[in-house]
Amino acid sequence: MDEALIEARAAAERGEVPIGAVVVIDGVVVGRGGNRTRQNNDVTAHAEIEAIRQASATLGQERLTGADLYVTLEPCTMCAAAISFARIRRLYYGAEDPKGGGVDHGARFYAQPTCHHAPEVYSGLQEREAAAILRQFFKDRRDED
Amino acid sequence: MDEALIEARAAAERGEVPIGAVVVIDGVVVGRGGNRTRQNNDVTAHAEIEAIRQASATLGQERLTGADLYVTLEPCTMCAAAISFARIRRLYYGAEDPKGGGVDHGARFYAQPTCHHAPEVYSGLQEREAAAILRQFFKDRRDED
Repeated sequence: MDEALIEARAAAERGEVPIGAVVVIDGVVVGRGGNRTRQNNDVTAHAEIEAIRQASATLGQERLTGADLYVTLEPCTMCAAAISFARIRRLYYGAEDPKGGGVDHGARFYAQPTCHHAPEVYSGLQEREAAAILRQFFKDRRDED
Repeated sequence: MDEALIEARAAAERGEVPIGAVVVIDGVVVGRGGNRTRQNNDVTAHAEIEAIRQASATLGQERLTGADLYVTLEPCTMCAAAISFARIRRLYYGAEDPKGGGVDHGARFYAQPTCHHAPEVYSGLQEREAAAILRQFFKDRRDED
């Protein structure tokens, strides 16, 4: 999760909502990503999707069976589904996201009959630090306004 | 929808599950995509996401306010959320997808409190043709086995 937090801080420095993610296989980081929706003009460029796409490109395979994903915020519904499609084994996330989360809030995708692979989910990892980075980012933005 | 069906047929010719999508603004196609998950080793390379990413790149903007999206199959949960994030105005889809759809099945994302923009949804457009392309593709694959 420390590596995901590094990606979150790097996203903040780019002016992006500070969320970071890494994909790990056998203790090795094979993909990493931070939010790049503004930089890339791409609503799908969330940290999790960037990390999954990088891992798949690195490994030359669509499915990341046996891989674990660490992300600083509860994945949204889009990312929850992408994580399922990639066959991620374990999902570790930091802070909860009651307004936009799709794992333990709203769509709760992994509990749906249309979900054909659900990762094991572990929440609350370094959540205070993950939440603090987000809070600071939004406070700085308000102060700038 | 004819343009989306052209993309679906092109996907089949590439050996991909034949689903196609186009993004339209003021009657002009600004983004088009077919399923490329295998070719790109990317579980997120669904037709809708390819079309949205292309439209955003072409227009240089993250949000596609006022745009309509046509897709041959009911979007999955991941794509339903991406369509929401892109602020698509109207979603037109062909065949229903009871097993994997996220609009009128399963997560029903647009009815969730975590969904902050829902497009108008019109289903069943040229659904017989859209479904026939999918059926033929899977029949051919079984025959090859």
